[in-house]
Amino acid sequence: MSDFVRIVEVGPRDGLQNEPAMVATADKIELVDRLSATGLRSIEATSFVSPKWVPQLADAAEVMAGIQRRPGVAYPVLVPNEQGYERARAAGADEVAVFTAASEAFNRRNTNASIDESIERFAPVLARARQDGVRVRGYVSTVLGCPYQGAVPLADVVRVARRLHDLGCYEVSLGDTIGVGTPRQARDMLLAVAAEVPMAALAVHFHDTWGQAVANVAACVEAGVRVADSAVAGTGGCPYAKGASGNVASEDLVYMLHGMGIDTGIELEALADTGRWLAAKLGRATGSKVGRALAAA
Amino acid sequence: MSDFVRIVEVGPRDGLQNEPAMVATADKIELVDRLSATGLRSIEATSFVSPKWVPQLADAAEVMAGIQRRPGVAYPVLVPNEQGYERARAAGADEVAVFTAASEAFNRRNTNASIDESIERFAPVLARARQDGVRVRGYVSTVLGCPYQGAVPLADVVRVARRLHDLGCYEVSLGDTIGVGTPRQARDMLLAVAAEVPMAALAVHFHDTWGQAVANVAACVEAGVRVADSAVAGTGGCPYAKGASGNVASEDLVYMLHGMGIDTGIELEALADTGRWLAAKLGRATGSKVGRALAAA
Repeated sequence: MSDFVRIVEVGPRDGLQNEPAMVATADKIELVDRLSATGLRSIEATSFVSPKWVPQLADAAEVMAGIQRRPGVAYPVLVPNEQGYERARAAGADEVAVFTAASEAFNRRNTNASIDESIERFAPVLARARQDGVRVRGYVSTVLGCPYQGAVPLADVVRVARRLHDLGCYEVSLGDTIGVGTPRQARDMLLAVAAEVPMAALAVHFHDTWGQAVANVAACVEAGVRVADSAVAGTGGCPYAKGASGNVASEDLVYMLHGMGIDTGIELEALADTGRWLAAKLGRATGSKVGRALAAA
Repeated sequence: MSDFVRIVEVGPRDGLQNEPAMVATADKIELVDRLSATGLRSIEATSFVSPKWVPQLADAAEVMAGIQRRPGVAYPVLVPNEQGYERARAAGADEVAVFTAASEAFNRRNTNASIDESIERFAPVLARARQDGVRVRGYVSTVLGCPYQGAVPLADVVRVARRLHDLGCYEVSLGDTIGVGTPRQARDMLLAVAAEVPMAALAVHFHDTWGQAVANVAACVEAGVRVADSAVAGTGGCPYAKGASGNVASEDLVYMLHGMGIDTGIELEALADTGRWLAAKLGRATGSKVGRALAAA
């Protein structure tokens, strides 16, 4: 059996929520269905954060009602608190994701709460999810740097990741939200967390703001991680805009992993087709170099 | 003493020769001078290949006459044969670079010669350079794949690299011309060559067509290489064009290396400024993500 890395496709949520062009509900549904047809096993479908904060994803319930649930594919949705959890469950979600940051300054600016307070907000979500048999994924953001406080102590990343795991998150995704990390920092951060949380319960999540995301995933895969988050077409910020902060493109990761002899279960050409289709809906070129190279081939 | 990687800046040659927009001679001279002011130690200044093949660099002699030679900086120029060597020397070059490919098919298509014939063409260059005290760099292209023959046997890469080193090249640059390689392939290729040519005499040269270049350099640096070729602003193909095939951006490599605790002697902000200045001359945005991120900061 060959080595396997699971890609968690976050384009429909983390990607779209940061795109300026509004996407029609029917297109979001088609996006998720196209993605599930490529062989992806995990697709973050939408967010139940308040539409006040994320207008792009105000149609979360409609998206959940419209997608075709493919057997063997998980469709986690983001929830900020118990109210969001209830809305997600009413919409049929059977996996959710909660989030906090490793940086106190980032938490205060983004959620008007300390790290501990943000965890208190979603602790009831974890309790209810356990009763309901709902799996919960946890995000830790700003693991390699914070736009407000700068450096983020490794001990804070480890402490927050461990707390999420102890609270019942089956997987903790370690996110370089502002895309500043480089390969050795990424590997060292991962290994520090893996000393306290099993590697099999960890995922990495890189943005490509400083052009390091593919290299960072490579370094983390070599260090043992087997789950990586990414967004088709590198959505999450226009690649041509100043200071764009898109997620690493799923196509570029899948190409790399297959080239490294690692299976993903994903059909690369179908994924790249979906990326170009989505980019056209967003009115721009795909942010995936693999997507462009395949189109030219 | 901290670890050091030498960047060989190939933007003025490998970058510009593949850019559709013609650049004025005065701008090329300013480009080289701006680059030497950033702390770069090696700048490939131009090419003495026939202007019939590379119209963009028809002003090679004027460029060489116009640049300011900064002490401690090498300004290699590309030469295809003895006639090119004579023109380069007449223009004041004191370092040259010769080139061949690891793929027979690529050599035949690009130079109408076999690998052995292409080496025979520049063997006299190496003999004359030895007499003249001129240092010679050697390029081996298509080391991880060929657009015509597909896979390139590792044994061919090793054989050609060793031949260039045996003939007197002080450094052999291993080029993934079509940017198809992934990190483990890149590392394995480097280590196979390093078994026959000293690692200290090797450089890596990646194009970012498939989004893998930064990751490939990281893998090769971890495997021991200490010289990497790159082009400021990721020149060598418009990043927005279909199937663009730019060199890896120097800014993105320098950012990565500094983040890995490795010195380059280069001032990143000055390099990124130069990249944006060049991109403006080319009528497009910089192909460097670091260049864009710094502009937005």
